[in-house]
Amino acid sequence: MNRNDVTEMIVAAKIAKGIKWADVAVKIGLAKEWVTSACLGQMAFTAEQAAIVADTFALPPEAIPVLQAVPYKGSLPTAVPTDPLIYRFYELISVYGTTFKELIHEEFGDGIMSAIDFKMDLQREPHPAGDRVSITMSGKFLPYKTY
Amino acid sequence: MNRNDVTEMIVAAKIAKGIKWADVAVKIGLAKEWVTSACLGQMAFTAEQAAIVADTFALPPEAIPVLQAVPYKGSLPTAVPTDPLIYRFYELISVYGTTFKELIHEEFGDGIMSAIDFKMDLQREPHPAGDRVSITMSGKFLPYKTY
Amino acid sequence: MNRNDVTEMIVAAKIAKGIKWADVAVKIGLAKEWVTSACLGQMAFTAEQAAIVADTFALPPEAIPVLQAVPYKGSLPTAVPTDPLIYRFYELISVYGTTFKELIHEEFGDGIMSAIDFKMDLQREPHPAGDRVSITMSGKFLPYKTY
Amino acid sequence: MNRNDVTEMIVAAKIAKGIKWADVAVKIGLAKEWVTSACLGQMAFTAEQAAIVADTFALPPEAIPVLQAVPYKGSLPTAVPTDPLIYRFYELISVYGTTFKELIHEEFGDGIMSAIDFKMDLQREPHPAGDRVSITMSGKFLPYKTY
Amino acid sequence: MNRNDVTEMIVAAKIAKGIKWADVAVKIGLAKEWVTSACLGQMAFTAEQAAIVADTFALPPEAIPVLQAVPYKGSLPTAVPTDPLIYRFYELISVYGTTFKELIHEEFGDGIMSAIDFKMDLQREPHPAGDRVSITMSGKFLPYKTY
Amino acid sequence: MNRNDVTEMIVAAKIAKGIKWADVAVKIGLAKEWVTSACLGQMAFTAEQAAIVADTFALPPEAIPVLQAVPYKGSLPTAVPTDPLIYRFYELISVYGTTFKELIHEEFGDGIMSAIDFKMDLQREPHPAGDRVSITMSGKFLPYKTY
Amino acid sequence: MNRNDVTEMIVAAKIAKGIKWADVAVKIGLAKEWVTSACLGQMAFTAEQAAIVADTFALPPEAIPVLQAVPYKGSLPTAVPTDPLIYRFYELISVYGTTFKELIHEEFGDGIMSAIDFKMDLQREPHPAGDRVSITMSGKFLPYKTY
Amino acid sequence: MNRNDVTEMIVAAKIAKGIKWADVAVKIGLAKEWVTSACLGQMAFTAEQAAIVADTFALPPEAIPVLQAVPYKGSLPTAVPTDPLIYRFYELISVYGTTFKELIHEEFGDGIMSAIDFKMDLQREPHPAGDRVSITMSGKFLPYKTY
Amino acid sequence: MNRNDVTEMIVAAKIAKGIKWADVAVKIGLAKEWVTSACLGQMAFTAEQAAIVADTFALPPEAIPVLQAVPYKGSLPTAVPTDPLIYRFYELISVYGTTFKELIHEEFGDGIMSAIDFKMDLQREPHPAGDRVSITMSGKFLPYKTY
Amino acid sequence: MNRNDVTEMIVAAKIAKGIKWADVAVKIGLAKEWVTSACLGQMAFTAEQAAIVADTFALPPEAIPVLQAVPYKGSLPTAVPTDPLIYRFYELISVYGTTFKELIHEEFGDGIMSAIDFKMDLQREPHPAGDRVSITMSGKFLPYKTY
Repeated sequence: MNRNDVTEMIVAAKIAKGIKWADVAVKIGLAKEWVTSACLGQMAFTAEQAAIVADTFALPPEAIPVLQAVPYKGSLPTAVPTDPLIYRFYELISVYGTTFKELIHEEFGDGIMSAIDFKMDLQREPHPAGDRVSITMSGKFLPYKTY
Repeated sequence: MNRNDVTEMIVAAKIAKGIKWADVAVKIGLAKEWVTSACLGQMAFTAEQAAIVADTFALPPEAIPVLQAVPYKGSLPTAVPTDPLIYRFYELISVYGTTFKELIHEEFGDGIMSAIDFKMDLQREPHPAGDRVSITMSGKFLPYKTY
Repeated sequence: MNRNDVTEMIVAAKIAKGIKWADVAVKIGLAKEWVTSACLGQMAFTAEQAAIVADTFALPPEAIPVLQAVPYKGSLPTAVPTDPLIYRFYELISVYGTTFKELIHEEFGDGIMSAIDFKMDLQREPHPAGDRVSITMSGKFLPYKTY
Repeated sequence: MNRNDVTEMIVAAKIAKGIKWADVAVKIGLAKEWVTSACLGQMAFTAEQAAIVADTFALPPEAIPVLQAVPYKGSLPTAVPTDPLIYRFYELISVYGTTFKELIHEEFGDGIMSAIDFKMDLQREPHPAGDRVSITMSGKFLPYKTY
Repeated sequence: MNRNDVTEMIVAAKIAKGIKWADVAVKIGLAKEWVTSACLGQMAFTAEQAAIVADTFALPPEAIPVLQAVPYKGSLPTAVPTDPLIYRFYELISVYGTTFKELIHEEFGDGIMSAIDFKMDLQREPHPAGDRVSITMSGKFLPYKTY
Repeated sequence: MNRNDVTEMIVAAKIAKGIKWADVAVKIGLAKEWVTSACLGQMAFTAEQAAIVADTFALPPEAIPVLQAVPYKGSLPTAVPTDPLIYRFYELISVYGTTFKELIHEEFGDGIMSAIDFKMDLQREPHPAGDRVSITMSGKFLPYKTY
Repeated sequence: MNRNDVTEMIVAAKIAKGIKWADVAVKIGLAKEWVTSACLGQMAFTAEQAAIVADTFALPPEAIPVLQAVPYKGSLPTAVPTDPLIYRFYELISVYGTTFKELIHEEFGDGIMSAIDFKMDLQREPHPAGDRVSITMSGKFLPYKTY
Repeated sequence: MNRNDVTEMIVAAKIAKGIKWADVAVKIGLAKEWVTSACLGQMAFTAEQAAIVADTFALPPEAIPVLQAVPYKGSLPTAVPTDPLIYRFYELISVYGTTFKELIHEEFGDGIMSAIDFKMDLQREPHPAGDRVSITMSGKFLPYKTY
Repeated sequence: MNRNDVTEMIVAAKIAKGIKWADVAVKIGLAKEWVTSACLGQMAFTAEQAAIVADTFALPPEAIPVLQAVPYKGSLPTAVPTDPLIYRFYELISVYGTTFKELIHEEFGDGIMSAIDFKMDLQREPHPAGDRVSITMSGKFLPYKTY
Repeated sequence: MNRNDVTEMIVAAKIAKGIKWADVAVKIGLAKEWVTSACLGQMAFTAEQAAIVADTFALPPEAIPVLQAVPYKGSLPTAVPTDPLIYRFYELISVYGTTFKELIHEEFGDGIMSAIDFKMDLQREPHPAGDRVSITMSGKFLPYKTY
């Protein structure tokens, strides 16, 4: 049993039982963004978190240590994603990638926005012309240094 | 003279003259995110905007109609970006792509976050452990409908 | 049991039982284009639709919630399709892609034709020199806006 | 001077002079879809058509025979297009490719829709919730035969 | 049971029983080229043909409707084939592709040789310096038309 | 001046002067298939042939030794060709590749059809339902031997 | 049971029983290079050879006809090999490929070294500074001919 | 002026002047295999060698230090070579790659044949059925060691 | 049972039993870097080492000879790694690759750092601003030689 | 004039003038590893550093602001490097990538070694069996955190 097996079990149980990610996040006590990515095999759980997850999705006991091991990350089957929802994020990088680069360098100098010391929040933004998805990302700026 | 030629002229002039994107945005009267992406060849300018851009970067007159034509979009030379700053955004999609998908579907049902009816704001977020890059994205939710 | 498993069951049952997509569409009460794509794993069904599909193709009960979950979309095994029928559509984009772009921009300005707020209709067009396939696509124009 | 050179001249002249594809089509006396694709280097012109094109875009005389030669077709720089407008068409094939295949085979048997004996028409479809792009494609069905 | 499963059964039975493609073609009453490609999963059989194939290769009854469904075509595992015999055909296109294009256009004008309204014949051509493979291909010329 | 430069000069001169490949072949005294591929940079000419080619296309004297050097072969810009005429040949390999393999092995045993000791002939085949392209290929069978 | 299955059985039995390729070659009576490549699924055995192979590796009887069928060749899982030993051969082609081409053409004119009418011998070459791998390849020169 | 420029000058001069690689090798006093690969931009020359090369091919003085710098190696434009002569070597690795691996490991244990401490010799091997290309490669075996 | 199967068993047992690589290394008596890579299927064990590994991870007896066979190396599922930790090493090569090349050539002349006669040591480097990963690599310089 | 142009000027001047990277590093007062990567277009210089670089390599004045702009990083022309020296580093990641991952996670938990807060030192390590390249890398450990 590897992490992919466990992720497939979680996804199947979620669908079969009608569980919501937001509810799992409440049980774990962390943001729904972190908890969902962890359930989808991208983050490592602590022992207590793994026990809650196993209980929630009725996983076998062998799954519990697997949930605690650091996974091989990367959730997508192709380098350019085919799913339209995910592709739109890829398109944003394609269209705005050099803009991100220019504006971050203009404000901070040479360096990057960390994808590790990073958190995000995804919310519904009500709007008369149709509600919007609002995503706030926050990543530590890491400067290149000379040596 | 095509749009790539004009973009290279803009970038060269920006470096040579020490122009800031934020100042160009003020002249145009729009957000720095939109103005930068347009200067980098991803958006079409109006006639007045094009004239301001040409004046700011000392572009030849032939560049003005080129800035008004809709460009072939996509700002990156490779499908997986090599530049570390831009790669981190690609990595976020790789790691969080299925999380975006699950949470948006849980909140809104089947559909996507538009990358066209979209805006964003990039700011410095002061933090005692090191300042952070904060990006707020807002895209209209577009539902799949049956027919 | 994931969505791919269910799609394979549907395709196998369709062949074994000689079911027609057009008949399934009548049962569901929607266009054959939408119903076929949904049966092939590209759209999410409602509970009632899923029950009809399960009954039609004699699927096991566990398949019903799977049909209601939003699938990971993308129906083709390779980036450039190898099947001749599907390749011809890819070729049309290769040959006419820039034409689509120029004519839509000439008529509407900068923006795209939505692939989400989209419907289509595929019909036989009788013709003395050999019948033709007629496809009418209709997608909402989504304009890029400044901000 | 090859066809790519001529295409670049046409595009540059169109932008500089503010020429519309629809007007060129009227001069040529054919559909705007065919004329645009031919101007963009995907079709071969007759001698008279080439003369009109050269006159319209002020091309040098050497361009006239080049416009009459059959071009190496394919208008896009990458196998998966990066431009959002063109990508949506690629996405439609990704999502609906197997649907096209199933419905054409159900109606016509084994074979393809020709991309050669093909024509299309692109129109604005007025709609209270926002105008739509309407595209009607018509391609001859070509059956596979036994031998 | 999908078409790939049936193809693997056919190939395994052919090897185990020492069946020859030419003999299957005689039973079906069509050319060995068409029959072999159909047995290898590239063409759809009629009901009578499928029954003969099933009988010849001792396939289970469920295979019969599968043989009648139109398959997803494309017989090779990689875009550039690794098998030396098949690669030589790929090499011929690489070396002679532009020659095919020039000579067909010189003789027929703009258009293509159909790969659908197509037949071929593969024979041994005796030769004192070593026998040769002779392949005659015949495909209908399909002209591009203006509209 | 390399071979690509010379090929571009030949193609440009052919278009500008309205030269036919078949006429060049008559001047050289060889088949139009070989001569065309050689003019397109895929074969090496002898000194006399090179002189005729240079004279026919009004090439500069430096081109003559370049035409005699063995070129780096491969005439297509992408691994999967985008031009519809050339793609149809690629599709034939995709659909019939395993058929070629099975039938050649059935007739000859393990080995290949040579793409070097190879010739071909391309002709118009008149047909009441529309003329056809007829291509006859002849390649020496080369057996794998044990050692 | 296909050829890959048989190859995996051979490799597993070789490891489990500690069989040496050189000893299998002696039993077959051919060079170790040919015998190893055939056992690894790249060549077709005769009936007697297949019987010896089956006996040596304790294969089931169904494997014997499979060993006699001509396999789909190509032994590597990726176009650029990842295994360091095999990569070094790829690197030699990358670094020396144009050298092979120039020297063979200088000596023989236009043509190739056959990879079919080919044999090779791999030996240990004792050397005071560390023993060396010595590989002698011999392939028939096949000239391109005019026609 | 970079190394590619110099290589192109050498190749052009070789063709224009009818120089033979074997003669250049005699002037340099090294094997034709090493000298040819160095002239083709894959090896670094010493000062004296560079002077001889510059003199032989009538290179400008600036080329001399460029010939002495270590080049970025890799002589082929695509990962899978399109030129038939060079492809045959790639095919040998594809077909015999696992054989090389098995036989070297059987003889030497885990390790590789060096592509750096490597030399080769390419000769014509006369043969009544047609002369053959004979290539002898010798590379130091480098063992993996534990630590 | 092949090496991949054994590697998966080792990884599963490690997680289930909470074994540490550093402890396995102590049992084997070699560096943790070598032992971990060998356990992950990249190196061949001796008979004694294989017995210890089998005992440690409770592997079945058939696994022991498999651990002693030389594996097909390469531990990553994609050419550009998706896992963020491993990607950073890829990024270092992308950013510093030409720097490695220039500095090694400046110090040693033309040649490479061996990846075979190679060892490395990975340690925690305590640091007040956050501990660091320290990796020391040592590879024999292998010079290109003339011949 | 863009950064690539400046990098090519630097490399050409270095070769023509026989400048050593180590000497440039002394002038700048930083490590040779950082200075070389910056000269090769991977890092941004300060105004004073840029002036020293321009003086050392006799660059035109326009190059000075270009050297101060943050470059688009990535120094290699292909995703898998072809140059043997650089490939060996890629191979180390292929063979040891999962080992890096396991050992860093075992020591530090989930997170990465930073490639931004990173420095390295490359030295000659004298050794009786042949000198070695010694590279010490030090990157800050960045932990994934829950939120």
